Amino acid sequence: MSESRRYAIGIEFDGRAFRGWQTQQPGVVSVQETLERAISTVAAHPVIVHAAGRTDAGVHASGMIAHFDSPSVRNERNWLMGINTLLPESIALRWITPVSDGFHARFKAVARRYHYVIYNHPRRSSLLAGRATWHYHPLDLARMQEAARALVGVHDFSAYRAVACQSNRPVRDVHFLDLAQRGPLIRLDIQADGFLHHMVRNIAGVLMAIGQGKAEPSWAAEVLASRDRTLGGVTAAPDGLYFVNALYPEGFELPRDPPGPLWLAGWPADFVG
Amino acid sequence: MSESRRYAIGIEFDGRAFRGWQTQQPGVVSVQETLERAISTVAAHPVIVHAAGRTDAGVHASGMIAHFDSPSVRNERNWLMGINTLLPESIALRWITPVSDGFHARFKAVARRYHYVIYNHPRRSSLLAGRATWHYHPLDLARMQEAARALVGVHDFSAYRAVACQSNRPVRDVHFLDLAQRGPLIRLDIQADGFLHHMVRNIAGVLMAIGQGKAEPSWAAEVLASRDRTLGGVTAAPDGLYFVNALYPEGFELPRDPPGPLWLAGWPADFVG
Repeated sequence: MSESRRYAIGIEFDGRAFRGWQTQQPGVVSVQETLERAISTVAAHPVIVHAAGRTDAGVHASGMIAHFDSPSVRNERNWLMGINTLLPESIALRWITPVSDGFHARFKAVARRYHYVIYNHPRRSSLLAGRATWHYHPLDLARMQEAARALVGVHDFSAYRAVACQSNRPVRDVHFLDLAQRGPLIRLDIQADGFLHHMVRNIAGVLMAIGQGKAEPSWAAEVLASRDRTLGGVTAAPDGLYFVNALYPEGFELPRDPPGPLWLAGWPADFVG
Repeated sequence: MSESRRYAIGIEFDGRAFRGWQTQQPGVVSVQETLERAISTVAAHPVIVHAAGRTDAGVHASGMIAHFDSPSVRNERNWLMGINTLLPESIALRWITPVSDGFHARFKAVARRYHYVIYNHPRRSSLLAGRATWHYHPLDLARMQEAARALVGVHDFSAYRAVACQSNRPVRDVHFLDLAQRGPLIRLDIQADGFLHHMVRNIAGVLMAIGQGKAEPSWAAEVLASRDRTLGGVTAAPDGLYFVNALYPEGFELPRDPPGPLWLAGWPADFVG
């Protein structure tokens, strides 16, 4: 048996088909389990997959990054074709590349990026069901953008994390939090060194309340300063949430698809960012 | 009981959830049956729905147009909210409007319009599964555009219709047949006075073969002139096909959403056309 190699993979999945990246519930299908089964078959030995982030039930990914180890000798084409053939249509491998042993999808990630897509229209859409969060009250983009500015930078995000969040450090560095609109779609584009549980969905919930006029733009900062989750309102639905990318330090060069699920639907580059 | 009124409706549906617009198979769910059940409940009497076109299993609609008759008195909001609440997430009513008795969604339509969306990329996409037709061989848009020109105008489309097609007239007037590309997506935009069974999918199949280099651009015209279905190659998958609109003569003004499913994903107006 030859020496084990480490591989990084880029993964796209439709979160509606799964109970999240990882699950402890028996009989319930997780993305991780589905991937491990397909990769293990191609590798011809049991494989463990480590991801940059653990997404909740219903949350999608256009560019989840993960890694696994295998001593099996396969070329890129054989890994990709073999694994994609075994995966259900709700998961696809976008790329695979050998990386150095020092790489770790979770512990070496210096940034994660999410998109949150809101369909702001009086009537629901069947073609966007589960793919964007439907909000039927008109949203004011400028108010949401003003509110978002207060959340950029290093802050204690206790007020924006789930009560059940297990992280022992509530401080995160939000690199950017941009909002843009095309027709009835509003897209929130956020990158941080890491995210607390439900952090993006709680931010989206606060920004939607502000966009709708239920609260002033300053409320986002007030909630942040309170460090009190009970002030932050409802957690927005998982439907519109996409894990779009993870970043690693120099020396770990990974292939890059243009970021974001909307690239797939042909959004122009200046909007996808 | 008051006099019956006629209503036109605009319908969006995800074709993956249904065995087509209409079906004779018992125990199999059609779009028509699902709609009729919801509308009948709101109208409080049995309702028959007549559509501009009958789509096959797996074919989507962003702007199907249909009509029904009812003497029940409901305002627009009550019809829309009531029906949409009863429909599954895979169907949504976009609008409803009273029309004159002379309106008929099928017999008064002077044009139908479809989009066919191809995802041209070496690897399949899980987020576009069932929503666009995956073609992994590179396609040359210019060749497809050149081939498409021969199909515009009044022609006998016998070579592009399904063997089982029941229409007794194989002549159709194609108003336009445009192809455009954004990143990995190619969109075929076709309007005609009417379509034969499988006509758009057979045209898409021929154009993809030409785009891939399996045949010369002139082949589309040769197939057309042959009037022989067996020369036309494979019927393209239903995944990428969307019924986007039907047009009616002056006097039957209907509400209009911007046409096409890609509007929903924020494609710029100049591309959606």
